Amino acid sequence: MTSTPTRSTPLNVGLIGYGFMGAAHSHAWRTAHRFFDLPASPVLHTIAGRTASAVADAAEQYGFARHTTRWQDLIEDPAIDVIDICTPGDTHHEIALAALAVGKHVLCEKPLANSVAESEEMARAAADAATRGIRSICGFSYRRTPALAYARQLVADGFVGEIRQVRAQYLQDWLSDADAPMTWRLDKDKAGSGALGDIGAHVIDLTQWITGTQIDQVSGTLATVVPTRPAAGTAQGLGGKGDASGERGQVTVDDVALFSARFAGGVLGAFEATRMAQGRKNAMRVEINGAKGSVAFDFERMNELEVYDATAPAGRQGFTRVLTTEPEHPYAAAWWPTGHGLGYEHTFTHEIADLIRAIGEGTDPSPSFAEALHVQRVLAAVEASDADGSRWTAVGPQHPTTEETTA
Amino acid sequence: MTSTPTRSTPLNVGLIGYGFMGAAHSHAWRTAHRFFDLPASPVLHTIAGRTASAVADAAEQYGFARHTTRWQDLIEDPAIDVIDICTPGDTHHEIALAALAVGKHVLCEKPLANSVAESEEMARAAADAATRGIRSICGFSYRRTPALAYARQLVADGFVGEIRQVRAQYLQDWLSDADAPMTWRLDKDKAGSGALGDIGAHVIDLTQWITGTQIDQVSGTLATVVPTRPAAGTAQGLGGKGDASGERGQVTVDDVALFSARFAGGVLGAFEATRMAQGRKNAMRVEINGAKGSVAFDFERMNELEVYDATAPAGRQGFTRVLTTEPEHPYAAAWWPTGHGLGYEHTFTHEIADLIRAIGEGTDPSPSFAEALHVQRVLAAVEASDADGSRWTAVGPQHPTTEETTA
Amino acid sequence: MTSTPTRSTPLNVGLIGYGFMGAAHSHAWRTAHRFFDLPASPVLHTIAGRTASAVADAAEQYGFARHTTRWQDLIEDPAIDVIDICTPGDTHHEIALAALAVGKHVLCEKPLANSVAESEEMARAAADAATRGIRSICGFSYRRTPALAYARQLVADGFVGEIRQVRAQYLQDWLSDADAPMTWRLDKDKAGSGALGDIGAHVIDLTQWITGTQIDQVSGTLATVVPTRPAAGTAQGLGGKGDASGERGQVTVDDVALFSARFAGGVLGAFEATRMAQGRKNAMRVEINGAKGSVAFDFERMNELEVYDATAPAGRQGFTRVLTTEPEHPYAAAWWPTGHGLGYEHTFTHEIADLIRAIGEGTDPSPSFAEALHVQRVLAAVEASDADGSRWTAVGPQHPTTEETTA
Amino acid sequence: MTSTPTRSTPLNVGLIGYGFMGAAHSHAWRTAHRFFDLPASPVLHTIAGRTASAVADAAEQYGFARHTTRWQDLIEDPAIDVIDICTPGDTHHEIALAALAVGKHVLCEKPLANSVAESEEMARAAADAATRGIRSICGFSYRRTPALAYARQLVADGFVGEIRQVRAQYLQDWLSDADAPMTWRLDKDKAGSGALGDIGAHVIDLTQWITGTQIDQVSGTLATVVPTRPAAGTAQGLGGKGDASGERGQVTVDDVALFSARFAGGVLGAFEATRMAQGRKNAMRVEINGAKGSVAFDFERMNELEVYDATAPAGRQGFTRVLTTEPEHPYAAAWWPTGHGLGYEHTFTHEIADLIRAIGEGTDPSPSFAEALHVQRVLAAVEASDADGSRWTAVGPQHPTTEETTA
Repeated sequence: MTSTPTRSTPLNVGLIGYGFMGAAHSHAWRTAHRFFDLPASPVLHTIAGRTASAVADAAEQYGFARHTTRWQDLIEDPAIDVIDICTPGDTHHEIALAALAVGKHVLCEKPLANSVAESEEMARAAADAATRGIRSICGFSYRRTPALAYARQLVADGFVGEIRQVRAQYLQDWLSDADAPMTWRLDKDKAGSGALGDIGAHVIDLTQWITGTQIDQVSGTLATVVPTRPAAGTAQGLGGKGDASGERGQVTVDDVALFSARFAGGVLGAFEATRMAQGRKNAMRVEINGAKGSVAFDFERMNELEVYDATAPAGRQGFTRVLTTEPEHPYAAAWWPTGHGLGYEHTFTHEIADLIRAIGEGTDPSPSFAEALHVQRVLAAVEASDADGSRWTAVGPQHPTTEETTA
Repeated sequence: MTSTPTRSTPLNVGLIGYGFMGAAHSHAWRTAHRFFDLPASPVLHTIAGRTASAVADAAEQYGFARHTTRWQDLIEDPAIDVIDICTPGDTHHEIALAALAVGKHVLCEKPLANSVAESEEMARAAADAATRGIRSICGFSYRRTPALAYARQLVADGFVGEIRQVRAQYLQDWLSDADAPMTWRLDKDKAGSGALGDIGAHVIDLTQWITGTQIDQVSGTLATVVPTRPAAGTAQGLGGKGDASGERGQVTVDDVALFSARFAGGVLGAFEATRMAQGRKNAMRVEINGAKGSVAFDFERMNELEVYDATAPAGRQGFTRVLTTEPEHPYAAAWWPTGHGLGYEHTFTHEIADLIRAIGEGTDPSPSFAEALHVQRVLAAVEASDADGSRWTAVGPQHPTTEETTA
Repeated sequence: MTSTPTRSTPLNVGLIGYGFMGAAHSHAWRTAHRFFDLPASPVLHTIAGRTASAVADAAEQYGFARHTTRWQDLIEDPAIDVIDICTPGDTHHEIALAALAVGKHVLCEKPLANSVAESEEMARAAADAATRGIRSICGFSYRRTPALAYARQLVADGFVGEIRQVRAQYLQDWLSDADAPMTWRLDKDKAGSGALGDIGAHVIDLTQWITGTQIDQVSGTLATVVPTRPAAGTAQGLGGKGDASGERGQVTVDDVALFSARFAGGVLGAFEATRMAQGRKNAMRVEINGAKGSVAFDFERMNELEVYDATAPAGRQGFTRVLTTEPEHPYAAAWWPTGHGLGYEHTFTHEIADLIRAIGEGTDPSPSFAEALHVQRVLAAVEASDADGSRWTAVGPQHPTTEETTA
Repeated sequence: MTSTPTRSTPLNVGLIGYGFMGAAHSHAWRTAHRFFDLPASPVLHTIAGRTASAVADAAEQYGFARHTTRWQDLIEDPAIDVIDICTPGDTHHEIALAALAVGKHVLCEKPLANSVAESEEMARAAADAATRGIRSICGFSYRRTPALAYARQLVADGFVGEIRQVRAQYLQDWLSDADAPMTWRLDKDKAGSGALGDIGAHVIDLTQWITGTQIDQVSGTLATVVPTRPAAGTAQGLGGKGDASGERGQVTVDDVALFSARFAGGVLGAFEATRMAQGRKNAMRVEINGAKGSVAFDFERMNELEVYDATAPAGRQGFTRVLTTEPEHPYAAAWWPTGHGLGYEHTFTHEIADLIRAIGEGTDPSPSFAEALHVQRVLAAVEASDADGSRWTAVGPQHPTTEETTA
C-alpha cells in the first residue's frame, strides 16, 4: 500500500455561521474538489460562530479543524485564504469589508447586505480588492443549478429569439399557518426584508442573469398577511411550530411581494415572492418567453428544464421535459450517469468549484458584489414603489431618497 | 316500431353570429337536453349573420331551421324565446337591450360590452327585465368547467380555510410571432380590449366567483409588445399566418396585461393575461391558497384539479391530482364513466343547461349582467391604473373619472 | 328569414342498445356532420332495445324518431342504411350477420364477438359484403383519439425509426374494492372475457395499428383477484356499490391480464390490462420505443402525446408534451382553437365521420372485421397461453386447438 | 481558536474498485457522519484497484490515504474495519468470502454475485460471520431513497390495505442506438446478466422489500434486441459512442427482460427491465396497488412519491404528489428544508449511515446477503423460464436444475 500524496495546493477556508447555510457551504467545501478538477483543494480550516458549545459541535460535525466565537480571529489569521460569510444579512457589511481589507477572498451569502448603502460600499470595496487580485462572490447559488445554467446558455445562444416576456415566482407556504412561530427571518432588523429579499431576490438575480439584462423599473406591492405570530423560543430559520398559546410577536417584514419589472430594452416581467402559497414548498419558478421559444423551470423539479422550440415542425411543438443530467448540461458531467438527479446542495458545490477556479485562474467570479448590489437596488425600488401606491419606480444608484418616495 | 313523441316543451333559440362562438353555442343548444334532464328542449330556430351566403352555410352546418342577415328579425319574431349573442363586443349593447325590451331571454357572450357605460345600461335593463321574469346571463362559460365549479364548492365549503392569496394567469402565445396577422381582436374599436379584456376577463370572473368576493382595487400595467402586424385578408379571430410581405396594421390593444388585485377583505391576487407566452396554448390558470389548503387549475388539463389539504397527515401532504370525472363532481354525472374526460365545448353545454333550468324554474342564472358589469369595471380600473403609472386604483361604479386618475 | 334547406344526403341510422355505448354513439351520429364536411348527414331513424319503457325513454333522450324492442325490425326496415350494434358481445354475431345479409352497413362495437369462431364467420361475411359495396367497421374508437392517430402517423413516417419495443397498459381500478358489485361485464357468458377482452383488446388493436404489424405470439397470465362479489340488483356496466351484506356471485372472467407479445418482425411488447390498479381511472397507455425516437400516450391526458426525438440536439432531448389540438393533428382542425381540448366522446364522432366518408366514397373503413378478428385471435392465444402455464403460444387462424394447448 | 477534537470512533474503510460505484461510495463514506448522528466516523483508509496509475489518481480524487493494486492488501491489513466491494460481479464472491473470513464487515455492491451457487456460499458465510458480530450488507441502495422507504412504511402500516397488484419497470435507453459500443456490462462473463440482473434486480429487491413478501414464481422472456455492437476501446460502463466503423463484438446478455411474478400469497406483479426504452433515462418505477390505496414512484423524479388514498372523501381522491423532503420522511430530516430535493448519491450516504449504525449497535443491516441471494434466485428463475418458453417457474434454493428447465 502506498500513501497518497496531496498534489494540489491547499486553500484554507474560514467559515462564519453554523446554521443551515453553514452546513450547506461546509458540504460544498468538502466536496467540490472530489468531483471537479480544480487548481486548489479546500481545507476546512476554522469555523466561527456566536455560541461556544454550538460552534464546537459544528466544527466537529462539519469537519473544521478549529473553531472560535470571534469572527475577527479568522480575519486576523494569515493562514486563512477565503472567508465564507453565512450569517444573517445585518453582519455581512462589517465582515466582508474587514476580510477584503486584509486581502482575503470572500464568499458572501445573499443578500449582499440589508441596505443599498451598505451594499454600495461593499461593491466598491470588492472592485477595489479585485485590482489587487482578491476575488469576491455573492451566494446566489441557484445560478449553479444545471437546468438554470443551461437555460441561460440557451437564451444567450439565441434559442428563444427576441425575448417577449419574463415570468418568475418564488412560492413557499411555511407562513400560511398563522401560528407558525417568529424567526429572525421575520424581523426586519435582522433580515432586512421578508419574502421579497429572502426569496424574491433569487428570482431577480436569476432573471437578470439568464436574460443578460438588468431591471430598470418596478411597480410593486408588499403585504404582511399574518402580522403577529407566536414568539419562538429558538432562533430557527425556517418552519417549525411555535408556542401557540403564548405571547405573539410583531412580524416586521412582508410575507407576500408582487411586482412587475421592466428590463433594460423594455421587456416586462411578472414577479411574485410569497410564503403564503399553501402547498408550494420551494416552487422557485422562472420562465422566459421569446419569439422563437421558451424555457421554464421549477425548483421543485430541479433536474428538469422545460424547453419549447417554436421552430420545431408544426404538430411536434410542445414543452420538452429535458432531464438536465446529460454530459452536455452545465456541471452535470462531473456527476452521475444520465437520469440520476442532483440535489439542492449541489448548487453550492458548483458555486464553490467555480470560485476556486476563479481564484486559481485569476479571474473575477460571478455574481460579483456589483451584480448583487443591483439586486439590492431592485429590492429597494420595489419597497419604494410599494410606499408610493405601487407606482412605477426607477431602479438606480441614487435610490431611494426621501424626495422620491414621498409624494 | 313506434314514433317517439317529444314530451318536453320546446325553447326556440335565435343565435346571432356564426364564428367560433356560434359553432360552440350551437353545439351546446343541440346537446344540452341530450345529457341533462331539462324542463325544456332547445330548438335551433333561426341564426343571423352579416353575410348572406355565410349565414346560409352556417344554418345548414349548425342545424338552424332558418337564417337571416338582419339580427332584428330575431327580435321581431315572437316565436323566438332566447337570443344568444355571439358577435364581437361592440354590438352587444344594442342587441341585448333590444331583446330584453321585447321580453326575450338573453345569453350574451363575454365581454358584456366594450365599455363600462354600456355595461351599466345593460345591467340595469337586465335587472329590470328580471322583475318581469326575463332571464339573462353573460357567457363566462369557464365557470362550468367541472374542475372549476368543484374548486368553488371546496372554497365555499371551507376546505381551503381563510384565503391567503390568489394567483391567476391566462397565457397564450399566438401573438409571439411578430408576423401573426391582424384580426378584429387586435382592433380596439371592435374588441374593446386585448389580452386584458378578452382572456384576462375570464380569470377576473373566475377568481371572484370561486372566492365569493369582489375585486376592490387594482394596480396594473398594459403593454403592446408587437405594435404592428401584417394586415389580414380575413377577419379570422385566432392565430393563422398573415401576409408577412405586405402592409402592416396598427395593433390598438394590449397583448400583455399584468396586474395586482385587492379583493374585498384584503386578499391579494397576482394576475397576468398575455398572448406572448410562447408555448402556452391556453394556459388559463387559477390558484387559491388558504390557511388550510389550496386548489389549482390549468385549462390545458381541464379535467384535473390540483387539491392540497394542509390538514392531511404530515408526510402525506401534497397536491392531489383529482380527475374531475367522478359522479361527485359538478356536471360530470351526466357524461361518461370515471376517467373519461370532457372537452372545451362541454363548458357551453353546461352553461346552456343551467340557463334552460333557470328559465324553467324561474330563477336568475349566474353570471348575471351585474356580475359581468363588475368584471368590466375591474378591466376599466386596470386601464386607469396603467394610465396612472400603475398606481393602485379603486374599482367602482363612478369609475373612471378624470378626477380620480390624475393626482 | 329564409328556411334552411338540407342539401346533403340523409343516412338513416338504426341503433341497437341504449346503454353507455348507445349514448356515446347517438351523440356521435348527431354531431359528426356538424363539424366535418361529410357526403351524407346521419338521421337518427330508429333505436332498438330490450325493455319497452327504457327504449322509449332512450329514443327521446337521444333523439331517435322511432323505437322498438325487436332489433329485427331494424334489419327488416328498408329505409335504414346503417346498423350500429351497441349490445353486449354475445349478440354481435347474430345481428351483424343479419344486417350484412340484407345489405346494410354495419358498425359493430368491440369486441367483434365473444369467440374466435363467431368472429371468423363475421369477418368472412364482411369481406363478402364488401364486394357488394357494403361497409363494415369494428368500434375500436380509441384509434380516433387525435394523439393516437398522430402517433401512428409519426411511426409510419419513420419518426421513431426502427421499432425497438412496445409497452401498453390499460389500468382501471373499479374492481379494487372487493364489494364492488357484479355486472354483466364480469359474467363470461355475456362478456366473453374480463379485463383482457374488454380493455386489453383496445391496446392490442392500438399497438398493432400504430406499429403497422400484427402480434404473432403471446405469453400470458390471467387472474381473478377477487373471485366473488355482491350480486347487483341492476345491470349497470361500470362501477357503483353493490349490496355488500347480501349474496355474492361468482366472477367468471379475469380482472388482471399480463402478457408479453411478439410482433411480426420480432419486436417485443409488454402488455397489461387490469381493473385492480387502485387510483388509475382510465389509464390506457401506449408507448412505442424506436431507434430514433419514442411516442407515449395516456388516455387520462387524452389531449397530449409525449414525443421523444433522439435526433434532437444533445442537451435538448426529452419527452415533448404535444397538445394535439393543432390544425396539423388528425381531426383537430374541425374543432376549437389550439389548446382547447377534446373529450372522450369525440373518438366516436371521429369514427362515425370516417365511416360516413367511407360509405360516401365507396372505400372500406378500418378497423375492418378482419382486423378485429385478429385482435380476437390474440385474446384467444393469451387465454391458451395462460392455460398452458404462460408458455409462448402462436396467434393463428387455427387457434386454439386441443393439440396446441396441451403439451 | 480552538482545535476541534474528533470525539467519535474511527471506522477504517477499504474500498475495492474505482469506477462509477467507487466514486459514489467514497462520497457516501466522506459524508454520512456529517449529516447523521453516527456511532463511528468513517476514515477513507485504503483504496484498491487494478491499474496502478488509475488507483493512485482515484485515491487522491476520492480522498483515500493509501492505495494499492492488490485487493488482498486490504484483507490483510488489520487496521481496516470494513471492506467495500465496488468491482464487477464476477469478483464479489472471492473478495467477500476473504473479508468475512478475517472478520471484516462487508458492503458488497449488487448483484451479490454472478451465480446462485456463489451467492448461496456468500449468504452462508455472512450468516456464519454474523454469529461472530461481523456485519454484511448488499448494496441495493435504492431502498434508501426517502420516497421508497416511505412507500414501504405506508404499505407496512396498512395504508394501501390488502395488496392487489404490483407493477415495476426499470427503463433506460442507452442501448437503443445500435452503434452504442460494447462495455463489460454487455459481457455475460463479467456482468452475469444484462438488463435483467443489472437493473431488473433493483425492482425485484424493491418490490419484495416494500411488500414484505418474496417472489415465489416467475414467467419471463429475455431478448437481445441488438446482438452486435462496436467494440469499445475503453471499459466504460454506461453509454458513450463506440467506433462505429470498426469491428463489432457480440452482446452476450439480454437488453430487454419482461416477466410476471407471483409473490408469496398470490399477488401478481408485472415487471420489465430494458435498455431499449428510447427517451427513458433512468425510469425506475414501482407501483403497489392495494384495496385501500396505492403508491407509485419513478426515479426520474426521485423526490416525489405518488400516493393514492381510496378512503379519502369522494370527489377529492387522486394521486397526491408528495415531496418526500419533510421531516416525517425517512432520512429527510438530516438534510435541507422542505422542498429542497436530494440527489442520486444520497441513497449511498443513507446506506452507509445505516451500515455504520448497525455496526455500532450490533445489529444486522438489511439487505442481508440472504435477501440478495433471493434476488439472485429470482433472476435465475427468470432465465430458466425464458429457456422454457416463458413457462411459470418456481424460485427456489434447488433452482435451476437440468431436469426442470428441459421439457
